[in-house]
Amino acid sequence: MPSVEGWLRTSRYLKSRRPSPRVLLLSISNPPHNLLNGDVLYELSKVLKMLSAQETGVVILTSNIDDLFISHYDVSEIVDLASLVPEGSRIPPSVIRGALYVESWLHTFGLRPWIRRSTVAGLANLNCYHEVLQLLRSIPQVTIAAINGRAFGGGCELALACDFRFMVDTPAEGIPGEARGSGLGQPEITLGLIPGGGGTQMLARMLGPAKALEICLEKTLLTAEEARDLGLVNALYSRKELMPKTFEFAERMARRAPAAVAAIKDSVYEGASRPIMQGMRRENGNFGSCAMEPEALLAMKKYLEQQDDILGDDTLQKFQPLQDGTFSEFRPNSAYLERQWSRVTPRTPRQPVEELVQIRETARARIKERAKERAKAAKAK
Amino acid sequence: MPSVEGWLRTSRYLKSRRPSPRVLLLSISNPPHNLLNGDVLYELSKVLKMLSAQETGVVILTSNIDDLFISHYDVSEIVDLASLVPEGSRIPPSVIRGALYVESWLHTFGLRPWIRRSTVAGLANLNCYHEVLQLLRSIPQVTIAAINGRAFGGGCELALACDFRFMVDTPAEGIPGEARGSGLGQPEITLGLIPGGGGTQMLARMLGPAKALEICLEKTLLTAEEARDLGLVNALYSRKELMPKTFEFAERMARRAPAAVAAIKDSVYEGASRPIMQGMRRENGNFGSCAMEPEALLAMKKYLEQQDDILGDDTLQKFQPLQDGTFSEFRPNSAYLERQWSRVTPRTPRQPVEELVQIRETARARIKERAKERAKAAKAK
Amino acid sequence: MPSVEGWLRTSRYLKSRRPSPRVLLLSISNPPHNLLNGDVLYELSKVLKMLSAQETGVVILTSNIDDLFISHYDVSEIVDLASLVPEGSRIPPSVIRGALYVESWLHTFGLRPWIRRSTVAGLANLNCYHEVLQLLRSIPQVTIAAINGRAFGGGCELALACDFRFMVDTPAEGIPGEARGSGLGQPEITLGLIPGGGGTQMLARMLGPAKALEICLEKTLLTAEEARDLGLVNALYSRKELMPKTFEFAERMARRAPAAVAAIKDSVYEGASRPIMQGMRRENGNFGSCAMEPEALLAMKKYLEQQDDILGDDTLQKFQPLQDGTFSEFRPNSAYLERQWSRVTPRTPRQPVEELVQIRETARARIKERAKERAKAAKAK
Repeated sequence: MPSVEGWLRTSRYLKSRRPSPRVLLLSISNPPHNLLNGDVLYELSKVLKMLSAQETGVVILTSNIDDLFISHYDVSEIVDLASLVPEGSRIPPSVIRGALYVESWLHTFGLRPWIRRSTVAGLANLNCYHEVLQLLRSIPQVTIAAINGRAFGGGCELALACDFRFMVDTPAEGIPGEARGSGLGQPEITLGLIPGGGGTQMLARMLGPAKALEICLEKTLLTAEEARDLGLVNALYSRKELMPKTFEFAERMARRAPAAVAAIKDSVYEGASRPIMQGMRRENGNFGSCAMEPEALLAMKKYLEQQDDILGDDTLQKFQPLQDGTFSEFRPNSAYLERQWSRVTPRTPRQPVEELVQIRETARARIKERAKERAKAAKAK
Repeated sequence: MPSVEGWLRTSRYLKSRRPSPRVLLLSISNPPHNLLNGDVLYELSKVLKMLSAQETGVVILTSNIDDLFISHYDVSEIVDLASLVPEGSRIPPSVIRGALYVESWLHTFGLRPWIRRSTVAGLANLNCYHEVLQLLRSIPQVTIAAINGRAFGGGCELALACDFRFMVDTPAEGIPGEARGSGLGQPEITLGLIPGGGGTQMLARMLGPAKALEICLEKTLLTAEEARDLGLVNALYSRKELMPKTFEFAERMARRAPAAVAAIKDSVYEGASRPIMQGMRRENGNFGSCAMEPEALLAMKKYLEQQDDILGDDTLQKFQPLQDGTFSEFRPNSAYLERQWSRVTPRTPRQPVEELVQIRETARARIKERAKERAKAAKAK
Repeated sequence: MPSVEGWLRTSRYLKSRRPSPRVLLLSISNPPHNLLNGDVLYELSKVLKMLSAQETGVVILTSNIDDLFISHYDVSEIVDLASLVPEGSRIPPSVIRGALYVESWLHTFGLRPWIRRSTVAGLANLNCYHEVLQLLRSIPQVTIAAINGRAFGGGCELALACDFRFMVDTPAEGIPGEARGSGLGQPEITLGLIPGGGGTQMLARMLGPAKALEICLEKTLLTAEEARDLGLVNALYSRKELMPKTFEFAERMARRAPAAVAAIKDSVYEGASRPIMQGMRRENGNFGSCAMEPEALLAMKKYLEQQDDILGDDTLQKFQPLQDGTFSEFRPNSAYLERQWSRVTPRTPRQPVEELVQIRETARARIKERAKERAKAAKAK
């Protein structure tokens, strides 16, 4: 199994470290303007696919450059894409969708590296961008964007695809070195373009169509405060506090059960974008699947033993461990994580855990007992 | 026809009363912690299916226990569900969706009571839960949750499936008896679970994906004030005011036309969760269907007679009866309600109402007249 | 090619003028109450279809009557619709959807004028209404509602279908002439009806289901302030400022590239109402299509020449032209607009622009160079 840490050491655009064991910090480094481009995204997609839930519970995306998250997507790559067609011809969106579909089909045969060296590299880059966004929305890790400065265009979109966003607040005026710090937006319209990495989609789904149109058509740049007030950013911190607060939050999130994290992300992103009955059924399936995970069983058993105590306390103080996640930590080497969750690792048969067998047997006995009671009650009627 | 009142007298978990003729109050009673479980939901689904629009215009859900709405869904029933599979096996969501589908198919043959006594009772309970939620979203009654205290997990989800939510505000600190009062949230993640009764769906559709993830993954408990500020709760009241204010609101809502209530609920819940053109067409059909209801015709006729008066008044004071719904009350024994709306009652032929015939004839004469005018105008051109 | 200006001179219900060359102001005039009806909508749909992006970048909808936008849809036309069916019969929504579908099919053969003179005119009017709403959401012009007063029912829905809404603020109390000014809402429920022009859809998509139900079922009239606070209205202005501020905004919007405006509107309205992967793909196609437009290429080239300068400036002052849209104006006679965008004008072959050829050649040379570099790098590994 290739190690993500080993691969990251050879990475050109991604610096990495682990502020705590189950938290992986990825810093994008493409000086001077930290432009997003096909190469950066190719490395990102590689890392995200290699992550295992056993080792990593949280991924933090940030930049390696002071006061600058990501300026925007590299415009020269968009020109490449645009310059492929005969000048003056108008290509309908459906044709481009078709070409992108063909490229992603060829990718399944491992042809992307070859396509990225051809004149249609633009298609491969655009598909690769969307693969990264889709991975951020679907991996069992909690993803956090620590926006340490300007995030326009593609940078804003990359942040919007993460589960949480923390951002530096607008710096004091008149201090030149910090003026670069803030701002988030989609200025594509002023170049005759539109957001191409899900900007219209995430803004419209987060804020509704009216606000999304306002941002994409007119108010193209938002200050950090505006972004926070709209709910685009979860919290603002000063420059000094941004990373410590993000690490603190990440450590708390790293205690969540990976299966439940993936299930919630799928229910929210995929389920809630569908007609309501389809969304409900999707959540149902995810719920049942999580409830059958061994460590959820362990946690439920622990909870049932203490339930009367916890709920009986009017001040809810005994509920605290449930709120901050210390009640049942889903750590590496916990019952769950003994089995591999990641897609890249093979399934291995595993010895039954004594305790789990006991829970199941108790539960089954209970079901039988209740069934008898109900049958008796039904007869009595 | 079985009477809902009669059935409710034999109910074990539901206490009922009518604060006013067309308003039905259902109080869930499952001491000590008011846990939601399969039996409670089975009774709820039974009652909701028996309601007739003729008798009931508003359903209020509350609890029969002081300062406690519903603690959460009974965890021991989730353990039952979980303990059905061989330990260590991972069941994909699609298999669970399939099993739930089979159960609801068997239910159409009336086999649910039998299933609920078997070892796969968990599937029947989960389907029954979703039947209740879907009924709350589709019945022609306005549904209101009067949240008189703590509502976590399944309790929160039951409230979110209602059309309106009123809640007790956070009690003064230091008063032990009231400290139990407030709070709403989805703490499932800390047990390795996810919301299973539409929590992810309603939160994401009400607040967008970013806020829904924040609540489901991290900020698992919200105070009443936070819930109100987010728009999850329509209004907060003190303990003393909660029920009187809810009854006052309910009485106003009981004057709405049941057909229009059902049409608005369907357009909002079902229509607006679909692609925009499909949603528009759904609303269109609902609109036309409502406009053809006899009592809508009566109301429109009354309005046309007074239109110049109402719209001519610059202060909009004459508009008041339209705003508070006293302009045209849709009461039992009104033209509309003579016909049965409820699914459980048979259609009976009915004598034409003199007045309606008159409206229709006037309208038809008017159409012919306008057609002639238009033809004349067309010729003149 | 029929000129929109010429047609507007013969219009009965629409007064028009051009406050600036690329901005078209349409004032609806149907005294005394400015009711919306089939004839008004028929004229609106005609004008919106005739617009060419070459001449018009922004459409402003307002009313020709002081302190009154649109009272509501003409109730007598709804009675016409309703009186077509045998009294006492209940028509399910699906049948009405079917009838509307048949009407819009007949319309493709040009039969609508004939249908509008028949007894089923109501169906034609409802379809025509939805055609106008769909045009407002899809034309490459930015659409703005300047709500100069009361906008209830259909008037509120017409405004909600525009991209931006500016509204007069609530006038000072006690001044009789101005009391008529404000208010926006959907009071249909009090007549036993529901919003029929997308009110439930736009409200639910903009505010979520809970707030949409509150507005449609209970709080049927909102003041201008409430509408602004909810985000239903983009900004409030005094009576004197409303039109000057709207014109100023419109002039700025008229500099946007029509192809990008249409692409953003489609991505937001259509894309974001679909499952997330479908929405992303829709945005992708729109993005690629815009990026291939000649004037986007010109703007990107200009940007690439100045990129280091713009991004290197920490104060973001050089970014200003990108934010206010003066960086690259997409005017009539710009490279793009030499080609016709509008559906009604024929495609004409066009001489290649020297500059564009140069951009493309430079870009292609650059691609080849990069491909060589990459191949070399790959060999080196």
